[in-house]
Amino acid sequence: MYEELLNSLLKGELSLHRLDSLVGDSNKATYLRREYLERKLNLKLEKIASSILDFNEVIGRNCENTIGAVQVPLGVAGPLLVRGEYAKGEYYVPLATTEGALVASINRGCKAITLSGGASATKVISDYMARAPVFKLGSLEDALKFVKWVKDNFQLIKEVAESTTRYGRLLSIKPYLIGRYVWLRMLFSTGDAMGMNMVTIASQKAVELMEREFPGVKCVSLSGNMCVDKKPAFLNELEGRGKSVISEALVKEDVVREVLKASPEAIVEVNIVKNLLGSARAGSLSFNAHFANIIAAVFLATGQDLAQVVESSMGYTWVELRGGDLYVSVTLPSLEVGTVGGGTRLPTQREALEIMGCYGPGDPPGSNARKFAEIVASAVLAGELSLLAALSAGHLARAHERLGRGKA
Amino acid sequence: MYEELLNSLLKGELSLHRLDSLVGDSNKATYLRREYLERKLNLKLEKIASSILDFNEVIGRNCENTIGAVQVPLGVAGPLLVRGEYAKGEYYVPLATTEGALVASINRGCKAITLSGGASATKVISDYMARAPVFKLGSLEDALKFVKWVKDNFQLIKEVAESTTRYGRLLSIKPYLIGRYVWLRMLFSTGDAMGMNMVTIASQKAVELMEREFPGVKCVSLSGNMCVDKKPAFLNELEGRGKSVISEALVKEDVVREVLKASPEAIVEVNIVKNLLGSARAGSLSFNAHFANIIAAVFLATGQDLAQVVESSMGYTWVELRGGDLYVSVTLPSLEVGTVGGGTRLPTQREALEIMGCYGPGDPPGSNARKFAEIVASAVLAGELSLLAALSAGHLARAHERLGRGKA
Amino acid sequence: MYEELLNSLLKGELSLHRLDSLVGDSNKATYLRREYLERKLNLKLEKIASSILDFNEVIGRNCENTIGAVQVPLGVAGPLLVRGEYAKGEYYVPLATTEGALVASINRGCKAITLSGGASATKVISDYMARAPVFKLGSLEDALKFVKWVKDNFQLIKEVAESTTRYGRLLSIKPYLIGRYVWLRMLFSTGDAMGMNMVTIASQKAVELMEREFPGVKCVSLSGNMCVDKKPAFLNELEGRGKSVISEALVKEDVVREVLKASPEAIVEVNIVKNLLGSARAGSLSFNAHFANIIAAVFLATGQDLAQVVESSMGYTWVELRGGDLYVSVTLPSLEVGTVGGGTRLPTQREALEIMGCYGPGDPPGSNARKFAEIVASAVLAGELSLLAALSAGHLARAHERLGRGKA
Amino acid sequence: MYEELLNSLLKGELSLHRLDSLVGDSNKATYLRREYLERKLNLKLEKIASSILDFNEVIGRNCENTIGAVQVPLGVAGPLLVRGEYAKGEYYVPLATTEGALVASINRGCKAITLSGGASATKVISDYMARAPVFKLGSLEDALKFVKWVKDNFQLIKEVAESTTRYGRLLSIKPYLIGRYVWLRMLFSTGDAMGMNMVTIASQKAVELMEREFPGVKCVSLSGNMCVDKKPAFLNELEGRGKSVISEALVKEDVVREVLKASPEAIVEVNIVKNLLGSARAGSLSFNAHFANIIAAVFLATGQDLAQVVESSMGYTWVELRGGDLYVSVTLPSLEVGTVGGGTRLPTQREALEIMGCYGPGDPPGSNARKFAEIVASAVLAGELSLLAALSAGHLARAHERLGRGKA
Repeated sequence: MYEELLNSLLKGELSLHRLDSLVGDSNKATYLRREYLERKLNLKLEKIASSILDFNEVIGRNCENTIGAVQVPLGVAGPLLVRGEYAKGEYYVPLATTEGALVASINRGCKAITLSGGASATKVISDYMARAPVFKLGSLEDALKFVKWVKDNFQLIKEVAESTTRYGRLLSIKPYLIGRYVWLRMLFSTGDAMGMNMVTIASQKAVELMEREFPGVKCVSLSGNMCVDKKPAFLNELEGRGKSVISEALVKEDVVREVLKASPEAIVEVNIVKNLLGSARAGSLSFNAHFANIIAAVFLATGQDLAQVVESSMGYTWVELRGGDLYVSVTLPSLEVGTVGGGTRLPTQREALEIMGCYGPGDPPGSNARKFAEIVASAVLAGELSLLAALSAGHLARAHERLGRGKA
Repeated sequence: MYEELLNSLLKGELSLHRLDSLVGDSNKATYLRREYLERKLNLKLEKIASSILDFNEVIGRNCENTIGAVQVPLGVAGPLLVRGEYAKGEYYVPLATTEGALVASINRGCKAITLSGGASATKVISDYMARAPVFKLGSLEDALKFVKWVKDNFQLIKEVAESTTRYGRLLSIKPYLIGRYVWLRMLFSTGDAMGMNMVTIASQKAVELMEREFPGVKCVSLSGNMCVDKKPAFLNELEGRGKSVISEALVKEDVVREVLKASPEAIVEVNIVKNLLGSARAGSLSFNAHFANIIAAVFLATGQDLAQVVESSMGYTWVELRGGDLYVSVTLPSLEVGTVGGGTRLPTQREALEIMGCYGPGDPPGSNARKFAEIVASAVLAGELSLLAALSAGHLARAHERLGRGKA
Repeated sequence: MYEELLNSLLKGELSLHRLDSLVGDSNKATYLRREYLERKLNLKLEKIASSILDFNEVIGRNCENTIGAVQVPLGVAGPLLVRGEYAKGEYYVPLATTEGALVASINRGCKAITLSGGASATKVISDYMARAPVFKLGSLEDALKFVKWVKDNFQLIKEVAESTTRYGRLLSIKPYLIGRYVWLRMLFSTGDAMGMNMVTIASQKAVELMEREFPGVKCVSLSGNMCVDKKPAFLNELEGRGKSVISEALVKEDVVREVLKASPEAIVEVNIVKNLLGSARAGSLSFNAHFANIIAAVFLATGQDLAQVVESSMGYTWVELRGGDLYVSVTLPSLEVGTVGGGTRLPTQREALEIMGCYGPGDPPGSNARKFAEIVASAVLAGELSLLAALSAGHLARAHERLGRGKA
Repeated sequence: MYEELLNSLLKGELSLHRLDSLVGDSNKATYLRREYLERKLNLKLEKIASSILDFNEVIGRNCENTIGAVQVPLGVAGPLLVRGEYAKGEYYVPLATTEGALVASINRGCKAITLSGGASATKVISDYMARAPVFKLGSLEDALKFVKWVKDNFQLIKEVAESTTRYGRLLSIKPYLIGRYVWLRMLFSTGDAMGMNMVTIASQKAVELMEREFPGVKCVSLSGNMCVDKKPAFLNELEGRGKSVISEALVKEDVVREVLKASPEAIVEVNIVKNLLGSARAGSLSFNAHFANIIAAVFLATGQDLAQVVESSMGYTWVELRGGDLYVSVTLPSLEVGTVGGGTRLPTQREALEIMGCYGPGDPPGSNARKFAEIVASAVLAGELSLLAALSAGHLARAHERLGRGKA
């Protein structure tokens, strides 16, 4: 039967994605797709084949048309002492990356922070997921009436939206207009889930209600790009999305000199000239050195949505002298993470979350995801500190010559 | 001996990163670090342990402090007919993701494009990697003299910079000023490598030359954030970084209706209202629906630098009617990819590149990376088309209810 | 005595700005300063001298170190039929400009709109002035405590702030953080005044209260650039400042063809390709053709703050077909205008406001400024429509060849 | 005859703009339009009537539908010692404004700079005017061919474009693409004129050539918003438009304390926290305190295009300690000014330019406009310095209570 199916595939009579239902076993379907590609393209995919994944768990949840798995090296940085509201204590941070020198660099930052007494405060200052459908009305007057109707009927909309979800809670709706178009930015709390899916489904119900109840309104798109998902945008930087987190530390002068091999004054100068002046001159909306490196490595290790590295890595690094010591903070307005759902339930990703004690739902709901966000922000702090120190001391290129290829 | 080492680790007398040199085998060091974490944290990391990676190949190149590997499901979309300058023919695009519905959606877009005769043109219109050190001079006058000196001595700088690399070629240097600070944006061609590491090392040599030869100049930071690496910035959008690629297709009206289950008119409206008006209203610098989803999945599958999803996913989607058919194009100004170096040499990532015939150096140098860039841009085209169609027809939430969690 | 003073000035023993108090009459002081410049620089300033201004009314209010006045031609466009909440009827819009073709072009737009039945809706959708002092705290924890204290003591802060003003009302305070720095964006309603001065003084009192009552807080700057005054910023575009106004019209097809000499389809295309795609490609935050031209001309005519043309001219133009007719709207998120205070009380500026029935305080307070904002937005609508039509028909350069120099 | 015309106007049988040709004298037409408005609206416009302007010189050049003139108080700041390439010596800077305290504040900055030995360097680092038509091609392939054709035929295009102008010289053409749309950003040197009109007409000729010679290309709009005229945009900030100018000064410590009543350290802190962090947090593309105030006042005084305050006021302020002294610089990437044409030939504006020795054409061409640009940049330096000092010392609100209404 497999040969028959392979022949049909090779003749172009059968689509790859139909195999799962045809053979009733996605592990077999995965094998067949891989086998098909190997024959068709005359190559070997034996490494991709060597996976621990049960594709019956994967199909319909995490991926389609599977042919195997990709393996990425996983390192750890730490211990990193975190003094958050939910994360309290020393943590090892799992980092999956193919970029040499990155884990070593973050690890050095962790050491400097931990030796100085830890990330002396790390806080989630806001927490919600947003979806922003866009609507077209007949006129400006109608648009303003629609906005008023939405405001007047918030409780009803909330009930309908929340009927689709166990954890999602509609917090508020903020309207934005261009002429007779209206974007409704709907903010939800989402428990320990990153929540994009939950919020999409809930918003869809809300939209259906609006179209049913308000005459003449038409939803042009369930996502109107004011969510803002997977695009860099000042809206998220100003209003937040996911967790807005800040982490700070006071790094002792001798630690700066001995662990980071740099002078506090030089680090301050690099931060101002590179991260502030340089980003301003480049028309960037990220005023940091390499948040994205740390975010991407943690996201990959823990099953977060990698496309959300885009907005999750926006933010501000600030460094100043305090006496002889070095005060450093990172501000991440839009860190989108979860500890349930999505890729978090995959075998290796789950273990990675467990290393930080962050897998699964928290009690109360949301507390686990916030704990995780605090650890991530602290790791970002460590990574920024270490790279700024390296740049200030002229060590960047040297590290790259020694350890693979580059960052920042 | 292992127990001794583990005890030293547990007592805090030994750092994790010293194990590789101590035991002389990174596979054993990886095992010990994992074992240490298991004991210390009282948990099991058996999935992370189950890896095909040879960590002696990984340490010093791709990752440090390794404890194992992360596995991510790998699917394929295709066949996708590409009519590029280097990529000509049908391709299967490997996509590693944990976000359900994504591969299925891209696959649908591939089908629509291929049925319509392919991405009718895909071209790399510029190709270079940039590094921008920032310098401080004593005065504006000195800064202008320095800029002139750099211009006058371009050949010398080029020789020195290129002495560090086999493939890197210094193409040009563009200065930017704020007061007496000077950023020199140095552009290099980098063959088939993404090239960030190559360019960092070459720039370091150039900087050393400048500091040696031009009195009074001081390099504040080898990266002055005008590179712009791993941060979203209008500079990259305007000037490009990595490959600037455009891909377009003319999708037949019946294909739109039957494959994409949508009307061409509605897709045009969603693109204008969501991708143009919505992004403009949100203060975004990405005028697309979800480039980042496709970019992240291909990058992860093929060993690209995941932090570069940030700028590689910037760009513009354009859709219009042409007769009854649908013209669609995607423009990616800053797609940073390579087919040699970095994560591309890891076992599964290499196989993923081989699926597209893109692994390793091209002949002439650079041709393989450009071929790959063309395929990636075409896949982005497919992904945009499919999501816009789903949004225009109100299918987004439904797909998510069926297939895991969300995108866009 | 005048000769003595002139001699002292010429010898450099006396400063120009001391003359007003020395001679006790600013008209004479103005004469002396001008006379001094004429002698010192050996030139004639007789046109600058020919002014109707009473400088005793000007000094201490509008300008210092006066030497006379600048005269700018004042034209009118109209009648323009406006259907606003406060502005109802036909208006002539005073426009002061030195740019040939501008008034003629706006006038043509007014004609097209009025013939089509007027700007069918024009509404102020939000209205407040903002000032955002920035504070430094000892730590993130202190910063968060401070934010909470501000929230808890809003009524007290409001009382103290409002004690300085008859019309200003503190509406809300929104905090933004970077590490331990806190910006408090304070929003005030300001009656018929643009209100920047009122709000600055009220904010100063609020800041003094905070520094007195909250231990350890220090105001770094009364303006922390999140106000955002006289700088283009996405914050104002998203949150508004001054009046957020939208104006729309449905222009009849035959009017488009006969008055604007263009086709509706071509105008739609120019708007999308130029105002949306072009602005997006240029990294602009203004998605319009030339709001600034109309804003600057009205502001100059009516004594508004010309530096605020910067943010007042941000915004979005939208054009689409509706049947064969042309729907057009303009959205101005941050139009900062007043009808009392500042330059509005100067003789010619006051008369210009009277042409629209907009001079002085309204009843209820604020209504006159809103009426004026509605007229300005409608004039912007007329100006956009006319220029887009000219561009679509290839008439721009021709108009400039005929009538002075250029716009857009 | 006048009564007849007035009656026709009042009956709506005659348009205001037809009066000039009907009566053959624009001074009389101006009178009639004013008289009409006075009767129609039952008000007096006697101040607007009191003008020295000869409207026969104005109509067809600077304004249409004139009814008189607006008068704005004109002050001077200075002497300001400038050490530019073209401007060498002490200058009085004419400033027309209705905002109390502004001239006094700039004047104070001038004093501090002059006492410290002047703006120790001020340089125009690039100088050109841009116009960017946008074209539509049949496909990406055609678009790339068109770009190549333009490159290959640069000399021909240059000849045709320059045939329309005595001073304009086409320097280069830079293409930008989205799909099959092409923007050609054409850069011209324009002598002493700001040059927008000159460049528009020259570009029109170039466009006509392209449409004639290259089959299938269609110019969608002569201005495609990548010029970028009268809109804030990162493109201008990165590439420049008009003059890119930098001015710096080293202000002596005792001057800071005695003239500016502030401490150097506090000024540095305000600049970093307000102008860098604050602007970054607000999503601004202007990293300064109030460039727009100075730019608007000089532009109004000297007959520049006031709508161009928008982009001319973008830029960066940088302040740092140097020993105990204060180093300060301002960088204006896009200062659009001229000393011939436009409003510069109006009577009062011409005199204002003469105060600085900047009226009319320079020898060599362009030198007068550059001299003027250097003085403007130095005045901006003075204005920034003064306001930052006031903010750092907590003086802003106090100045406003004393002197009219606000800035910053």
